[in-house]
Amino acid sequence: VRRETLKAADLLATSRPTAVNLFWAIDRMRRLIGRLPGRTIGDFRLALVREAIAIRDEDAAMCRAIGRHGVSLLKRNCSILTHCNAGALATAEFGTALAPVYTAAERGIPVRVFSDETRPLLQGSRLTAWELARAGIDVTVICDNMAAHLMKTRKIHAVLVGADRIAANGDAANKIGTYGLAVLARAHAVPFYVLAPTSTFDLATRTGAGIPIEERSADEITNGFGRRTAPAHVRVYSPAFDVTPASLITAIVCEKGILRPDYGKAIRKILGG
Amino acid sequence: VRRETLKAADLLATSRPTAVNLFWAIDRMRRLIGRLPGRTIGDFRLALVREAIAIRDEDAAMCRAIGRHGVSLLKRNCSILTHCNAGALATAEFGTALAPVYTAAERGIPVRVFSDETRPLLQGSRLTAWELARAGIDVTVICDNMAAHLMKTRKIHAVLVGADRIAANGDAANKIGTYGLAVLARAHAVPFYVLAPTSTFDLATRTGAGIPIEERSADEITNGFGRRTAPAHVRVYSPAFDVTPASLITAIVCEKGILRPDYGKAIRKILGG
Repeated sequence: VRRETLKAADLLATSRPTAVNLFWAIDRMRRLIGRLPGRTIGDFRLALVREAIAIRDEDAAMCRAIGRHGVSLLKRNCSILTHCNAGALATAEFGTALAPVYTAAERGIPVRVFSDETRPLLQGSRLTAWELARAGIDVTVICDNMAAHLMKTRKIHAVLVGADRIAANGDAANKIGTYGLAVLARAHAVPFYVLAPTSTFDLATRTGAGIPIEERSADEITNGFGRRTAPAHVRVYSPAFDVTPASLITAIVCEKGILRPDYGKAIRKILGG
Repeated sequence: VRRETLKAADLLATSRPTAVNLFWAIDRMRRLIGRLPGRTIGDFRLALVREAIAIRDEDAAMCRAIGRHGVSLLKRNCSILTHCNAGALATAEFGTALAPVYTAAERGIPVRVFSDETRPLLQGSRLTAWELARAGIDVTVICDNMAAHLMKTRKIHAVLVGADRIAANGDAANKIGTYGLAVLARAHAVPFYVLAPTSTFDLATRTGAGIPIEERSADEITNGFGRRTAPAHVRVYSPAFDVTPASLITAIVCEKGILRPDYGKAIRKILGG
């Protein structure tokens, strides 16, 4: 059983290269397996499930903490732009990027959210808009290419995004399109916040240049949701993530607080403490 | 017949607010109608069709001229990013933004094109990629939100876009997403070229602030191509165009040549001359 479970852990670890929390959680389960005495399969399974539930509960608490820190960055009636899904459907309960929004709602602070639909898989319209609308939060879907026009016409007061991996210097990998939003936010003097638990920090990766970027199948773009919308055999390039340099990030919000540049120093301090 | 035709012209003029060539062409047909002697319906129709064919032929010649001027801006083996469709399917023959690409192909100069798919109506994948692939030109489709990552990784050497209306000061309205590309191009020191015939210049509109922006139906985003990809009743914002300020435009290429800043002066000179 132990060998089979470790094989499953290895398989999961090869599934997606960019996000580091995945490896963090797999390593935690691997360490648990190493510690488990040789008992029955039932006991073994129970211990793994208990650890998984513990991770879920800790994640929910971390997300709430991110929400408490992050909500201090939001003004009443502000409009927030978010990208992809870093909410209740991607994490536990409050999410990361959306945690300040849920916290604001809980405290009766009105905020408005614009959600990039996030091509090609449309997590912004299918997931983010769904979960925010369900929670009674004012949400408006836009196409990714509309964000710049919204910023120019002063409709956006802050950008909140999650992260799949944050390098030791603060460079942050997140869903493709995030980097462009960061450049646009800087050009329009809109604060750009990355919200992620400390399990997203990867000290072993010195800068964003060391983060592998997953490339995905052309079909997701040319045959989205079962409808062909591009000529047959057309060439497609589909990176699933991009890297936002630390220099474009106004603050990184994790469960332990709000980090400001110099991120290299701030991250070392918070992980050491 | 005259009255009916003028009524049809009025109806066409209300169809879309942003592009100015439409009004230009309708006005030209109106002037023709004003000049036509009272003859048979057959003669009347023939005169209108002749004028339409003349416009088509002049448009083809203008596009070829834009191509001749624009190709001088391209280097061998360069990679071009374009947005929406300003090619053979939107104009006559060579198109505007794509004219330098077709001219390069004709002269045996290898270039590579990345085509933003251009949400929500996907003109970039459905039209631009189709017509370029058909012409044997190397074309790769990307999602709109991937452009920034491509620029950062030095995969783009120039951005070529069309325009629906260019104000007297050089501010240019074009398909939503164009403005964001211009900001990204500037941030990455990539030249940003607007290619359009002089019929796109609108001296009556002093700056881009005076260009009306068409807003389109939520359904195009939530129910694209017959597939629902957003929750029912979700709020949507869908501006169809945006305005790129003259300050972000490296050059404007029209059939009469390449305009450089100060565009106000350059446009007055070229329209006067």
